[in-house]
Amino acid sequence: MPSPVIKLNSGYDMPQVGFGLWKVDNSVAADVVYNAIKAGYRLFDGACDYGNEVECGKGIARAISEGIVKREDLFIVSKLWNTFHDAERVEPIVKKQLADWGIDYFDLYLIHFPVALEYVDPSVRYPPGWFYDGKSEIRTSKATIQETWTAMESLVAKGLTKSIGISNFQAQLIYDLLRYAKIRPATLQIEHHPYLVQQELLNLAKQEGIAVTAYSSFGPASFLEFNMQHAVKLTPLIEDETIKKIAAKYNREPAQVLLRWATQRGLAVIPKTTRPALMASNFQCTDFDLSEEDIATISSFDRGIRFNQPSNYFPTEYLWIFG
Amino acid sequence: MPSPVIKLNSGYDMPQVGFGLWKVDNSVAADVVYNAIKAGYRLFDGACDYGNEVECGKGIARAISEGIVKREDLFIVSKLWNTFHDAERVEPIVKKQLADWGIDYFDLYLIHFPVALEYVDPSVRYPPGWFYDGKSEIRTSKATIQETWTAMESLVAKGLTKSIGISNFQAQLIYDLLRYAKIRPATLQIEHHPYLVQQELLNLAKQEGIAVTAYSSFGPASFLEFNMQHAVKLTPLIEDETIKKIAAKYNREPAQVLLRWATQRGLAVIPKTTRPALMASNFQCTDFDLSEEDIATISSFDRGIRFNQPSNYFPTEYLWIFG
Repeated sequence: MPSPVIKLNSGYDMPQVGFGLWKVDNSVAADVVYNAIKAGYRLFDGACDYGNEVECGKGIARAISEGIVKREDLFIVSKLWNTFHDAERVEPIVKKQLADWGIDYFDLYLIHFPVALEYVDPSVRYPPGWFYDGKSEIRTSKATIQETWTAMESLVAKGLTKSIGISNFQAQLIYDLLRYAKIRPATLQIEHHPYLVQQELLNLAKQEGIAVTAYSSFGPASFLEFNMQHAVKLTPLIEDETIKKIAAKYNREPAQVLLRWATQRGLAVIPKTTRPALMASNFQCTDFDLSEEDIATISSFDRGIRFNQPSNYFPTEYLWIFG
Repeated sequence: MPSPVIKLNSGYDMPQVGFGLWKVDNSVAADVVYNAIKAGYRLFDGACDYGNEVECGKGIARAISEGIVKREDLFIVSKLWNTFHDAERVEPIVKKQLADWGIDYFDLYLIHFPVALEYVDPSVRYPPGWFYDGKSEIRTSKATIQETWTAMESLVAKGLTKSIGISNFQAQLIYDLLRYAKIRPATLQIEHHPYLVQQELLNLAKQEGIAVTAYSSFGPASFLEFNMQHAVKLTPLIEDETIKKIAAKYNREPAQVLLRWATQRGLAVIPKTTRPALMASNFQCTDFDLSEEDIATISSFDRGIRFNQPSNYFPTEYLWIFG
């Protein structure tokens, strides 16, 4: 069955189950996207920073050229990197990103992080990462979030993206943005898993009519490869006995249970895998319902544990993993 | 011994140990302030919202008239309430607050919460609280934090306050503010106690040269009277066996240990009590040193538990307690 959709405040429908492109290696990205389309995925969540937009675009082009989908069947998401927050940098980089994808509009374009860094020309380094010199020096820009958001709004008028949104924003910055926004953010993308339930932020988003997309739905699993100590120390959620027991009860995979927990809470999800079997199984995560009790059990895992710290950006021990 | 001072980025010295005026009843506020001055306190942390600035000012006037202190010996802090965030409301309300105190400048004036609410004229209701109608209806204003901060900056030029700062701000909003601030915040006032160590936010403040003042240093104790369930459920910190054991080791009160833990971490503190013995004992919290090990033990209490939620302001279960 196709993914259910979430009606955005921009008027567009967004698939609730999509495919995340973070850490999809360039060497396989085209095939992964192509296979994901064949598996039913229609939303692809990319970013300048993932460094694979050219390859992801090739996967899409192949699926379109083979008649599997049309462009309008797809919902392509990308994100503005920190070094392009200055007003005059926004439109040029979106155009470059669209060219990389080989498309002429995004369905949704997000501010990736609320952190303005000094401009690095794409001819110098692309994607630019966190560090001005590519290694150790972080340089901030003077762009305010208001300046950047105003530039994001102009992308909609120019037809470069259908909807605009934000990612990794804390509550207070959202409140402030809503004061000056002429176009309200359609979505907020955040880290969300049973160890980080984020109920307060979800309540805020609901009250303000902003759809929420969860990333890192499997919790520490996404961060093990970076050897983050607090990720390594935790039981991976898909191996947790309680999650496994709930999964067995519904005759589902633990990963499906984690995704269903999020989607029943109203969030969109963007799991990533390069394995075809998992790709199919992750996608089939909305055709069964967890009981209220099981949802509550999973929510009670909440420990406020983050793997992507949305504060103290300069410098933190985590910074390098996003560079 | 007098309180040590913290050098602010504005060039002024701020006493590290001050007196907090939240919940000091109007009927006793003048005497409490007067007695606190006699006990050695020089910093008084007030706010429009505490509803006792007239009475606190009387306590100060008495101490000055009796020659115990001069105005310039004192460090008087007050805060901008949410309903006065619109640029044109800032200066008039500061002037009213100064008149209430009976002084002609504040040493430090803070944005109390990063939440702009619709103006309520002081002749209608003062302090105005959270609700437009005084009871159930919250109305926001369109003022951005940038608009409010710019108005705050103009207070310094006009001599109405020596320094300006912020309170209850999350990391990302601080980063954004630092983009447009012509005068950087001198201080950040936040909830801080062993159940809420806030290491990331403290690191940010340190990196940005912003002094931090802790409120609710005793943790849940400040919130028991509101019957907040997660406060009631916790062991009060001053009754915690580990804290008591550490206190006994230094021959001090548990409250002194909690304050020393904060001050050794570099924070200013603003304990409040109306009892003279405690007033004196709280003030004497910088003439001994906890070992690094004991500091670490207390820090390990951290559970990320807040009693004053800096997000999802509209509406939350906590709102009423500040109204």
